[in-house]
Amino acid sequence: MPETKYKKDEDFNEWYNEIVELADLCDKRYPIKGMNVWRPYGWKLMNHVDRQIREEMEKTNHQEVYFPLLIPESLFKKEEEHIEGFGSEVYWITHAGTNELEERWLLRPTSETAMYPMFSIWIRSHADLPLKIFQIVNTFRYETKQTRAFIRVREIHFFEAHTCHVDFEDAEKQVKEDREIADRLLKKLCMPYIFCKRPEWDKFAGAFYTISIDVLMPSGRTLQLGSIHQYQDNFSKPYEISYETEGGEHNYCHQTTYGMSERILGALIGIHGDNKGLVMPPAVAPTQVVIIPIIFKGKEKEVLDACEILSKKLAEKNIKSHVDNRDISPGTKYYDWELKGVPLRIEIGPRDLDKKEIILVRRDTGEKKSVSQDASIETITVELDNISKSLYENAKKFLDENMHRVQSVEEAKNKKGIVELPWCGNDDCALEIENILDGNTLGEPIEDDEECKKYSCPMCGKPAETWMRFAKTY
Amino acid sequence: MPETKYKKDEDFNEWYNEIVELADLCDKRYPIKGMNVWRPYGWKLMNHVDRQIREEMEKTNHQEVYFPLLIPESLFKKEEEHIEGFGSEVYWITHAGTNELEERWLLRPTSETAMYPMFSIWIRSHADLPLKIFQIVNTFRYETKQTRAFIRVREIHFFEAHTCHVDFEDAEKQVKEDREIADRLLKKLCMPYIFCKRPEWDKFAGAFYTISIDVLMPSGRTLQLGSIHQYQDNFSKPYEISYETEGGEHNYCHQTTYGMSERILGALIGIHGDNKGLVMPPAVAPTQVVIIPIIFKGKEKEVLDACEILSKKLAEKNIKSHVDNRDISPGTKYYDWELKGVPLRIEIGPRDLDKKEIILVRRDTGEKKSVSQDASIETITVELDNISKSLYENAKKFLDENMHRVQSVEEAKNKKGIVELPWCGNDDCALEIENILDGNTLGEPIEDDEECKKYSCPMCGKPAETWMRFAKTY
Repeated sequence: MPETKYKKDEDFNEWYNEIVELADLCDKRYPIKGMNVWRPYGWKLMNHVDRQIREEMEKTNHQEVYFPLLIPESLFKKEEEHIEGFGSEVYWITHAGTNELEERWLLRPTSETAMYPMFSIWIRSHADLPLKIFQIVNTFRYETKQTRAFIRVREIHFFEAHTCHVDFEDAEKQVKEDREIADRLLKKLCMPYIFCKRPEWDKFAGAFYTISIDVLMPSGRTLQLGSIHQYQDNFSKPYEISYETEGGEHNYCHQTTYGMSERILGALIGIHGDNKGLVMPPAVAPTQVVIIPIIFKGKEKEVLDACEILSKKLAEKNIKSHVDNRDISPGTKYYDWELKGVPLRIEIGPRDLDKKEIILVRRDTGEKKSVSQDASIETITVELDNISKSLYENAKKFLDENMHRVQSVEEAKNKKGIVELPWCGNDDCALEIENILDGNTLGEPIEDDEECKKYSCPMCGKPAETWMRFAKTY
Repeated sequence: MPETKYKKDEDFNEWYNEIVELADLCDKRYPIKGMNVWRPYGWKLMNHVDRQIREEMEKTNHQEVYFPLLIPESLFKKEEEHIEGFGSEVYWITHAGTNELEERWLLRPTSETAMYPMFSIWIRSHADLPLKIFQIVNTFRYETKQTRAFIRVREIHFFEAHTCHVDFEDAEKQVKEDREIADRLLKKLCMPYIFCKRPEWDKFAGAFYTISIDVLMPSGRTLQLGSIHQYQDNFSKPYEISYETEGGEHNYCHQTTYGMSERILGALIGIHGDNKGLVMPPAVAPTQVVIIPIIFKGKEKEVLDACEILSKKLAEKNIKSHVDNRDISPGTKYYDWELKGVPLRIEIGPRDLDKKEIILVRRDTGEKKSVSQDASIETITVELDNISKSLYENAKKFLDENMHRVQSVEEAKNKKGIVELPWCGNDDCALEIENILDGNTLGEPIEDDEECKKYSCPMCGKPAETWMRFAKTY
């Protein structure tokens, strides 16, 4: 089988670009930088990921809505930190036709400032709470850094859940639920991840605290897939989102958001792919099983029938399969479907039929085996499950091997991936470590860990309050 | 049951606004006029319509893509008529952050000018044709007229299919396929419609010809739901979309587009709704059957179990049902679900169970009947089908009764709905008729009809070439 020109282990970034192009996921030749055209296969993959998100949202009683793309400048400016954080990144509409607008409108960089004036109307009493909504939309950010398909773009496919609660504690429960959702979702995508409580200087503009969802890419850099924010009443005060309690008091809501972007797709490609192309986790593979008829003259019908019968049986079990009956060589078909990352390939030829067998080939390991036709559905189900497990385990092994708990900056310097250092709690110390390591502060682990208190901050020598994580990031 | 304040027959426009609000489809209080917030039920309905569209697209081998929202001004200006037609309706982005852009970008009013530069790259040879793609996105138009939910808005939920072909004849076949798709789709939505070949002065900016898909609203005004355009090579020349033939020649492609907007939802609401609320065609109803347990003390479990068992059986037949076990009176539940337009209501109480019966109530007619529990799935399937038929027939009857073929403008003046007049082919005559009737020219029927040639144009007296349709429009 032909392989990619660039090798994943040798030049990850070039390999990534090559794979995106070969697998025809998006076209970067659109004349605005960082605004790419989603090609059919890329869009299908994204939709399959979105479907998993929608399923999780339904399970947790979030309702899907759609808010307008455009936000008047005056609404956007109500929360001070927010405008400071996003002001330099937004696109402004100033004219409609030949008229100059009375007030400028911006394209949503995220939807807090579009939604919250409406929440203020919608929420009247405690009976309206909690409010749990989400939308899947495109957001827009004026990126000045180098762009990269799915990882750093200017039109971003984005999921955002927004909730309102009676108090801080109820909002905290939501943060917990969001963490569980992220966990279930990323497990389905076979992606190990870490939650980091972002440092003060890097939290979301307007948030009380921010938990990031980060994965480790094969290059050793981390990629932030999304984040969960506790807003307290930071937005509900300027946007006047309050409710009447049972006792007749008026209280401000506490709010949370949970967002994830098309970076999920970037992570899928990068973490699971290999030098033959994509490797799709079965849960989001548009085609989970491809069936290739191996045709010899005189046996065409028998073989094709067997393929179609198997495909129908799989459909009954909700396994998405495709019979590739194109008039080209089996080898070319193998190549195509390996590139697209279809988890399992089945070959059926006349000799297999004589033996009442079919051949299974795993995309991830290349492992090939004959299995009895009678037990094929069960075996296929088990194999898909094995593929998921094995994709997850390999990625988890890589993450574990590249996450280092150390005590000194010197030790940290020589490590690839993520380092955890004891930290005193002083911003300057962390920023100095960033400098020395030429990396970024990811944040603290969200679980308390008393062990770090045995150590001292490598910069100032004061007792450590927590572990702090550092890595090079995308 | 409570009824709407405004009556559909008496004040359609106010009734329409009331229904949109009562059924909680969208919220018009967003601070930019004509940009509404899609509430969960409205968005769900729209998604169910989109699902039908995607099904039709898949059946006809169109592939779904997503093109960027923003279009550089220079690309937009390549086709002269197009920029003339849309120039006054687009929103312009001039700044990103605090920087002024070197070139202005506009929000897509439709995606020809975003897509065609890419088609020019993608298409090389006859083997790349036909190219058939579609996307479901939001488009933006600077409406200065009065806005109306789903009918006239500034951010428009929009389906657009774009195709490229080897020649005019192949593009004509596509137009035919598009008509068939529209027909199947609108039949599922129980909506009779007419195709009109738009007059020269009202065709799509840049098109060779435009066929509109119009429905007649209960107000007597027509609503254009979408259109099918034959572009010939009008766009492929300026955008350089050409291919190499088998013989090595280079030819320009011929192109078509087919678009429909959220107006489909406006038509659904207006045509099928009544003074109790929405009436959803079964094919797109998010809930097709609502099951209401009629609970008396001591029999709760028996009744609820029967409801759940029925719901599961319906799910097996792909019928979407919901058991409403809220702790409120059955009457309140009836009211809620009638407002939401659920096609079929089932009531199950202890007395019905004793008789091994359930009660069915049709949303459209209010008809109530007891049916045997054993045959319930079959009966429900038949009833849903009857509802579809009856919704279509009623709407068809209204269209037929309000479509008038007349010979003089005098006769036309007194008719509600659509009039067809013999027409000589001279633009001025049609424009004069528009003036007298205070209406718009819809266009010619797309089927040839020799009968009109017996008559003469009511304006100039010359022999008629075709029928021409006029109506008041939204």
